[in-house]
Amino acid sequence: MDAATNSETPQDTLYEEIKSFFDSAPPLKDGPGISKKLNEFIERNSQSTGGEGTGRVVCVTSGGTTVPLEKRCVRYIDNFSSGHRGAASTEYFLKAGYSVIFLYRRGSCQPFCRSLPEDPLLECFEVSKELNIQVHQSHSEAVKRAIGEHCGAVEGGLLLKLPFTTIFEYLQILQLIAMSMRNLQTRAMFYLAAAASDFYVPWKSMVEHKIQSASGPLDMQLVQVPKTLSVLRNDWAPMAFFISFKLETDSNILLQKADMALKKYKMHVVVANELSTRKEKVVVVTSSEKISVLRDSTEADADIENPLIKLLVEKHSSYVEDSNS
Amino acid sequence: MDAATNSETPQDTLYEEIKSFFDSAPPLKDGPGISKKLNEFIERNSQSTGGEGTGRVVCVTSGGTTVPLEKRCVRYIDNFSSGHRGAASTEYFLKAGYSVIFLYRRGSCQPFCRSLPEDPLLECFEVSKELNIQVHQSHSEAVKRAIGEHCGAVEGGLLLKLPFTTIFEYLQILQLIAMSMRNLQTRAMFYLAAAASDFYVPWKSMVEHKIQSASGPLDMQLVQVPKTLSVLRNDWAPMAFFISFKLETDSNILLQKADMALKKYKMHVVVANELSTRKEKVVVVTSSEKISVLRDSTEADADIENPLIKLLVEKHSSYVEDSNS
Repeated sequence: MDAATNSETPQDTLYEEIKSFFDSAPPLKDGPGISKKLNEFIERNSQSTGGEGTGRVVCVTSGGTTVPLEKRCVRYIDNFSSGHRGAASTEYFLKAGYSVIFLYRRGSCQPFCRSLPEDPLLECFEVSKELNIQVHQSHSEAVKRAIGEHCGAVEGGLLLKLPFTTIFEYLQILQLIAMSMRNLQTRAMFYLAAAASDFYVPWKSMVEHKIQSASGPLDMQLVQVPKTLSVLRNDWAPMAFFISFKLETDSNILLQKADMALKKYKMHVVVANELSTRKEKVVVVTSSEKISVLRDSTEADADIENPLIKLLVEKHSSYVEDSNS
Repeated sequence: MDAATNSETPQDTLYEEIKSFFDSAPPLKDGPGISKKLNEFIERNSQSTGGEGTGRVVCVTSGGTTVPLEKRCVRYIDNFSSGHRGAASTEYFLKAGYSVIFLYRRGSCQPFCRSLPEDPLLECFEVSKELNIQVHQSHSEAVKRAIGEHCGAVEGGLLLKLPFTTIFEYLQILQLIAMSMRNLQTRAMFYLAAAASDFYVPWKSMVEHKIQSASGPLDMQLVQVPKTLSVLRNDWAPMAFFISFKLETDSNILLQKADMALKKYKMHVVVANELSTRKEKVVVVTSSEKISVLRDSTEADADIENPLIKLLVEKHSSYVEDSNS
């Protein structure tokens, strides 16, 4: 089914690296609370009977992770990502009948909120002469959609939102999600749109205090974040359907890198996108084909995530059927 | 009046470094538009006659700056700062009759919005059965204050908001502000609460494409951002009243570093604060004294910025009077 793995890191070394990464990470706040929420969410939604994606749950990761450079964190390295892709995709997954676990960077774009201005509270509302809060007419529809559909999905129990900031929190919560989704078997999907950091400073070797600027240029040595993706795929949720993303600024190496990721991590799909054209075109790469997906440019408000999610839901359906036959 | 400067960098070298920093920076978007807004704001407010700070204008900088690590920016280094200090201080400066130019990091805390939840639009509102947007009772007062007072100050022309993200934008806009505030002479104040990056990657030496992770650990060499503070103080706005901040995580070196900054950059005041206690205590350092300012702990909602701004307004008043006599 999948192409043979050709990992550069021997498996034992990888497990050691990952163990040491997790051991050295600052403890996750309220891990048991998060697990409880997850289990309830999955318990409820695995039995749902409506929509195309009956009983299917997708974990959408969204936004960039940070890497602290100091223990008492003043400086950190951040990976750029608005979270627009993850937020838009979440809307289309909900529309297709999936329940969504939205693992997002604090402050990044939220589902159903994409057409709002940067600071919606201050830009969309005003206080009337009678001291009532009212929405500006021009933003009225966008605000209603944001509050109505977003809160509707959360309150209806179809959307579970879990925020992160650092790469440590991101991977710790992702592990909890994977563990709680195991029972869903092939009905579980991972849609890994977050921009996870490739490099980090190990917690142990991190300086305690703020780096001083007086002593000339700053040399930083960062080490690679262990390739957790292969453990997530093989050990944490071995039956789930996996979609990862490859973002590059150099189109010459993009498809080659997407192919490599597909094989190395045994992904079912890699979505290849180039930074400058990512809202217009992506390439869906599988072991047997490369399909270009384009935004419908005849419609002003069309999202590329609309045809993209349709295609991915089809691929997931085939995967579920194949595993049942 | 001020202690003698004891700069480590010879003045000519500093000018060259700053020139090269600005020359190599990506051009600021809509510089002329920002200058026009600034000139109108200052023209109008320099003639105002109400309040204690009659005709006084303060530039409050707030939030952390970023340093791009790649030209087509995927990764950057960020300095942590919620912008809480700058937002709170802006409220108290407005109360004291100052007009405020709020130079803030996109997404950081906004004046009069401090008691709102993280995502106010989604957490404070609901759509009623009649499809009207309404505020949850529990957040009603906070939302009214945010919208009413914030928008009131902006629309009343007393608060001018200018956003930045990178260290390049921050310093470019700060220069425009300083130039436009020159005519105010001693009535101009700079309250530099932003956490500006100390290190950067010069635009010219920056890689064009995303740094690849396959080739092992990442070595980064960052160079110091030139000490623009001394040029701002001496050349861009030589008559203004200057307050800078010193934040450290190590209390042992804090006051010594605050003293050094006061002398080196000829600041009128340096506010020394330690990361873990910064909302409870700061030390106002001048050439003649060190005054501890404490939050009024008998009141739950009291802000340390209340007594801090009172003290700084007094210091500014003395400065204006001294220069007139």
